[in-house]
Amino acid sequence: MPYFDAASAAPLHPVARQALLAALDEGWADPARLYKEGRRARLLLDAARQAAAEAVGCRADELVFTSSGTRAVHTGVAGALAGRRRVGHHLIVSAVEHSSVLHSAEVHEAAGGTVGRVAVDRHGAVSPGSYAAALGPDTALACLQSANHEVGTEQPVAEVAEVCRAAGVPLLVDAAQSLGWGPVGGDWSLLTASAHKWGGPSGTGLLVVRKGVRFAPPGPADERESGRAAGFENLPAIVAAAASLRAVRAEAAAEAVRLRELTERIRARVPELVPDVEVVGDPVHRLPGIVTFSCLYVDGESLLHELDREGFSVSSGSSCTSSTLTPSHVLRAMGVLSEGNVRVSLPAGTAAEDVERFLSVLPGVVAGVREKLGVAAQAPGAGPREAAGGRAGAGEGARAGEGARAGELVLDTLGRRCPIPVIELAKVIGDVPVGGTVRVLSDDGAARLDIPAWCEMRGQEYVGEEPADEGSAYVVRRVS
Amino acid sequence: MPYFDAASAAPLHPVARQALLAALDEGWADPARLYKEGRRARLLLDAARQAAAEAVGCRADELVFTSSGTRAVHTGVAGALAGRRRVGHHLIVSAVEHSSVLHSAEVHEAAGGTVGRVAVDRHGAVSPGSYAAALGPDTALACLQSANHEVGTEQPVAEVAEVCRAAGVPLLVDAAQSLGWGPVGGDWSLLTASAHKWGGPSGTGLLVVRKGVRFAPPGPADERESGRAAGFENLPAIVAAAASLRAVRAEAAAEAVRLRELTERIRARVPELVPDVEVVGDPVHRLPGIVTFSCLYVDGESLLHELDREGFSVSSGSSCTSSTLTPSHVLRAMGVLSEGNVRVSLPAGTAAEDVERFLSVLPGVVAGVREKLGVAAQAPGAGPREAAGGRAGAGEGARAGEGARAGELVLDTLGRRCPIPVIELAKVIGDVPVGGTVRVLSDDGAARLDIPAWCEMRGQEYVGEEPADEGSAYVVRRVS
Repeated sequence: MPYFDAASAAPLHPVARQALLAALDEGWADPARLYKEGRRARLLLDAARQAAAEAVGCRADELVFTSSGTRAVHTGVAGALAGRRRVGHHLIVSAVEHSSVLHSAEVHEAAGGTVGRVAVDRHGAVSPGSYAAALGPDTALACLQSANHEVGTEQPVAEVAEVCRAAGVPLLVDAAQSLGWGPVGGDWSLLTASAHKWGGPSGTGLLVVRKGVRFAPPGPADERESGRAAGFENLPAIVAAAASLRAVRAEAAAEAVRLRELTERIRARVPELVPDVEVVGDPVHRLPGIVTFSCLYVDGESLLHELDREGFSVSSGSSCTSSTLTPSHVLRAMGVLSEGNVRVSLPAGTAAEDVERFLSVLPGVVAGVREKLGVAAQAPGAGPREAAGGRAGAGEGARAGEGARAGELVLDTLGRRCPIPVIELAKVIGDVPVGGTVRVLSDDGAARLDIPAWCEMRGQEYVGEEPADEGSAYVVRRVS
Repeated sequence: MPYFDAASAAPLHPVARQALLAALDEGWADPARLYKEGRRARLLLDAARQAAAEAVGCRADELVFTSSGTRAVHTGVAGALAGRRRVGHHLIVSAVEHSSVLHSAEVHEAAGGTVGRVAVDRHGAVSPGSYAAALGPDTALACLQSANHEVGTEQPVAEVAEVCRAAGVPLLVDAAQSLGWGPVGGDWSLLTASAHKWGGPSGTGLLVVRKGVRFAPPGPADERESGRAAGFENLPAIVAAAASLRAVRAEAAAEAVRLRELTERIRARVPELVPDVEVVGDPVHRLPGIVTFSCLYVDGESLLHELDREGFSVSSGSSCTSSTLTPSHVLRAMGVLSEGNVRVSLPAGTAAEDVERFLSVLPGVVAGVREKLGVAAQAPGAGPREAAGGRAGAGEGARAGEGARAGELVLDTLGRRCPIPVIELAKVIGDVPVGGTVRVLSDDGAARLDIPAWCEMRGQEYVGEEPADEGSAYVVRRVS
């Protein structure tokens, strides 16, 4: 059954499994001890550190193993900020960082620091110029991911590192999504990664702090891992992580070409096969295995559920699927549609037939979910009237009641969740004349993102958001 | 080759290995995801939590898995202190806690909190009365280990928990050394443990926070493990930890009897076989597998090295073996000899023959180290003159020079490390008349512990420590 969520966790690489098994027998003792079991463990730890450092492109004594990528980020950000607290308390992050970076930034703010969040373009990429503009004399640290975990867009890390270097500010690169594909170029100062993203075991991340970078590890003192990762070393996992990184790298060039063809096929075919779809993320500067798209008039949770029933395990940044009810901060920062969002992230070794089967199944799945929501199927590229469908039920919540302005239709979707507000909007847009407006009342946060995105996709004009008694009013002008 | 350092890390239990292997195949996916691989991982995680909670004696929703026992302690202490910051900022710990607790206390002090350190008796045990006396209206948290990691002494946890409960103060129990043997009794509030101490894998600890205990997890927010253990769950290790805890518990009662006999044999035989040995730790209230003793006139590092050559892997709290140059804080708090310290901690399944072989090898090893240091062999219980041995070289550093008082001999051991100061003291004590004193000048921290301990063992009077131009002067009066 195809598992297409490698960006969450990749299945264990066979080399990781072998190395883990061997290290369970040889590497359970305390590497700080001087007796033979301890010395053997120390040798394994040293060898793993050397191998990982070679893959990263750093010195072995710059790299420590942490208990997860998240932990590496938490320690890296806090340690670099503390190390440079005399310089200042300003932290710069991109708006599309992993939650571990953003949550670190929130803690920094709560402790009195300041945070600058660098915007991204519609593909999810930052520009080096934005970082240059954000850097100030009190900037202690800047953070940038090597590539985005939700849409696969690669960031201009080397250029941003140069900008930071010129300003004397260390750059921390979260390389969780890319390290399996290759080293991170450029003159960065700190780097974090997570083994289970490249096919290594869970329970291991890595944190690199270049020599010369001021660093004060947070939390209670601990002598393990140069004082940067408290707790007994998880040696079997560390050994497996290093061995699998080396193995994955050996296969990376060829596998990248293969996976890129498969995701390119998804990028090209999905909009042809499924009406009202937006493929998001940079079409060129992107990771080989990730492709993300959003489907109008669909809730992500139902879509994932139906795909799971068909045997496909995918993820979503859509508001409706995760435990939280806000849309993905990444899609929001990009200003793209969040509803019906699907992230396909192919693990190494994904078979082409599995991708073909996904493409053959997807249109029916999307149509099925839309049908349940009262949206009729339509051909891609059709106009708004056709897109609305199910006109019989349209306008239930629409009224030209009290407070409504001339030539304006008020659509009350209060209390209704994504994707209903957009579905209702599509149903009634044809009821106002060209030049007239629809005023959508909604208290669902996803509407803030999805109504403008719908306008962009359907060629209508998004006038703006206004405060309302409850929730917000989103005003849309019919253009065509 | 006998491995006698289970208190550092126990070899992997066969059940842990089996469970780990199974979970590598079934439990690599993200348990937060809704697709089948995620649901399967969630089921494994839930089952592991239930099993571990049963073994601890708590509700499943009170227990989270951390990346190590150290991490559990760091989070537990910081979270409980933060949760009760409105009550006060006073923390109580015993003087013989694990370094993870003591380092947490140091961080708390550095942040402006206060710490009370409860003294122990000569066996290493606290008294409930001492905790009662230490508790104040501003006490936010008290910590007490279930049993000591260096000497095996069990603490009166249930009684201390009662005292804390009466004062309305939560008690955190570090159960790292004892959880494999059985649940911790009494009405404690928080509990921490480490899987690799009971034969589980490294990379997993557990933190229990009883319902109703105010708790504010430190560090950046993270939705994993109820927000108490950031980072992707190390599910294979968690599954293996829970399975092995259950397996170890099933064998615990019988194995405890067996190991207790073996350690009792070591306790009894070592002082008979080796001269000038002090067995430390409570003779009755102690863990089944740990026995600790210290040998006069020996440095721990050489002793461990020679035992390793003979095939025995043991540990030491001795100043001379670890990376730091201060003697173990545990031995110091107990006021017992630290030099030539050996901790034997038997893993489950240790063969009686291995213990016998250890007993047959030990006397020769100690004698060999003493010989290299210029200390002649002697029969146990012999007087100080005989203990000194090698009289030809005695008094090299001894002088009755300037500044020396009447009837006093000054022994300059500045720049010389443990166990030399004590060896030299033993050599010269016979040179002063009964009633006279030897003034030992030393800048080795271990002397502060070992000279009084030597006096206690040899029936001489320890007068006290005085400041000196360099290091300290330790004054000893010859009594016999």
